[in-house]
Amino acid sequence: MGEFDLIERLRERFGLEIGDDAAITVPGGATATSVDALVDGVHFRRKWTPLRAIGHKALAASLSDLAAMAAEPGEAYVVLGVPEDLSEPDCLEIYEGIDALARETQTQLAGGDVSRAPALTLSVTVVGHAADPASFVRRSGAGPGDALALTGELGGAAAGLLLLERPDLAASVGKDVAARLRARQLEPAPRLAAARALAAAGATAMIDVSDGLAADAAHLAAASGVGLEIDVEKAPIQPGVAELAEAAGVAVTDLTLGGGEDYELLVAVPTEALGPAAAAVRAAGAELTTIGAVIEGAGIRLEGPDGSIEPPPGYDQLRTPASP
Amino acid sequence: MGEFDLIERLRERFGLEIGDDAAITVPGGATATSVDALVDGVHFRRKWTPLRAIGHKALAASLSDLAAMAAEPGEAYVVLGVPEDLSEPDCLEIYEGIDALARETQTQLAGGDVSRAPALTLSVTVVGHAADPASFVRRSGAGPGDALALTGELGGAAAGLLLLERPDLAASVGKDVAARLRARQLEPAPRLAAARALAAAGATAMIDVSDGLAADAAHLAAASGVGLEIDVEKAPIQPGVAELAEAAGVAVTDLTLGGGEDYELLVAVPTEALGPAAAAVRAAGAELTTIGAVIEGAGIRLEGPDGSIEPPPGYDQLRTPASP
Repeated sequence: MGEFDLIERLRERFGLEIGDDAAITVPGGATATSVDALVDGVHFRRKWTPLRAIGHKALAASLSDLAAMAAEPGEAYVVLGVPEDLSEPDCLEIYEGIDALARETQTQLAGGDVSRAPALTLSVTVVGHAADPASFVRRSGAGPGDALALTGELGGAAAGLLLLERPDLAASVGKDVAARLRARQLEPAPRLAAARALAAAGATAMIDVSDGLAADAAHLAAASGVGLEIDVEKAPIQPGVAELAEAAGVAVTDLTLGGGEDYELLVAVPTEALGPAAAAVRAAGAELTTIGAVIEGAGIRLEGPDGSIEPPPGYDQLRTPASP
Repeated sequence: MGEFDLIERLRERFGLEIGDDAAITVPGGATATSVDALVDGVHFRRKWTPLRAIGHKALAASLSDLAAMAAEPGEAYVVLGVPEDLSEPDCLEIYEGIDALARETQTQLAGGDVSRAPALTLSVTVVGHAADPASFVRRSGAGPGDALALTGELGGAAAGLLLLERPDLAASVGKDVAARLRARQLEPAPRLAAARALAAAGATAMIDVSDGLAADAAHLAAASGVGLEIDVEKAPIQPGVAELAEAAGVAVTDLTLGGGEDYELLVAVPTEALGPAAAAVRAAGAELTTIGAVIEGAGIRLEGPDGSIEPPPGYDQLRTPASP
């Protein structure tokens, strides 16, 4: 397989326009740009991840950052790092996963690069759009008195990873639940529509839960210069997560608060806007749950049934071991 | 070293604003976006490349794509893939190289990502700007009758790589010339100012010489639907390249036509605009040399002193062996 052959196949199959040194766009408003890298052995394991899912997840992780800004997806640029044992059909299958999610989210695959690499690596740059910069929701706008809310359910992605590492645990939750948990890990769905609904409803600050609720809440608190009080029992847990945690002998909160990659949205909303916000999120296909409040101060306080909970460490891309 | 510690250091040292999930800009015109990845063992060798130069080269390669479009550099987004044996000071030194070139070219370091990776990897997305899409120079505008011209000199980067691989060859060219050849490989300079001068002078098509003159000329010919006739003897060769080729027992044309990474510009210019174009490029600090012509047809014809020359293969990121 040669670089230019692969690029030619990508052009044929996915209509990728790679005819110039750079891709031309006319944004006509404000843009939000984010880049995320996925590396085999760090963010996924090739041995248990279908190639399509690898492509899907790489784009999903980047689009989730656009969701956190309430941006309209625009263009994606994909860098594929190809190890020696990855064939041209393998590369095309990865792109199938990227292309399917791009179509679903109306993201244009506008360009990219391919390179030899020691491990399969995907680095995806996404550009999102809005009429003006003020239309984006940032991490920094939360104010004391705002409610803190969460889309969807937590723990599924971490539980799915546990199931991939230890397939023997599947019996503890049953086949269907196990499949849903694995899918949550392998093919996450960025909350793009819910995010725009939240922005329209008056969200003051937002972040996607990619590193774990505790870590991401701390990021939002720091950026807004506020404290966050979270009633842990109120955060919805994906079915099967508690049972799986028990079977695996780990704390449920390790999966729900520490596990990243659920790609739900943590959002600060003025209390009077909570009702309309929840209705708008429901219309966008998700549930919104109030899980706490924004307070004066700094840092996060996690309240459990028996008092304060020590925050589990979030996902740290450099501390996490690179390979089993 | 942790991910968030490193990000905090980057924020302190380089003023990187990584406070949101995406970086907000208001382009106010047209944008050109390009992404390039550099992988240790493929595009550089860590063992003989200073860390600052690695950072410099990663940004330079991406900026050269913007130069090829005659874009004004805007923002850069850097993904750093960090192997286990790279320390935090090492990472900061790489960023020193990125930051220095960013300042020199007025490129804003707007965001990025860091991740564990099996080999040092830099993936740099750059966004360039212009008043409108028509201001960009594309690969596709060359027409029969245009002159084909080249900025600067060829072969230096390939010769520099040869010297890094075989330091014993340095004696054949002398210390100063060898240093200049190595610098050409390690710290390439994107031709941003010359590119904008060429665009203003009426360039019809442009590409940067990153894969080798022969390969890149073929790309330009294909995109424009024309043939290119190149008088190989007219292309300026960097001092020392011929002597080094002889000492190494390789053909000079392997370095000048096949060697990539010179990051000069190959440009089609209407003949009547050649004079003003050369003057404008000189004012931008480079020389412009006419090396051929755009003709009807397809593909490239390389004419040497003894007739046609078979084009050497260009740099192919997937065919090039990953490691020595």
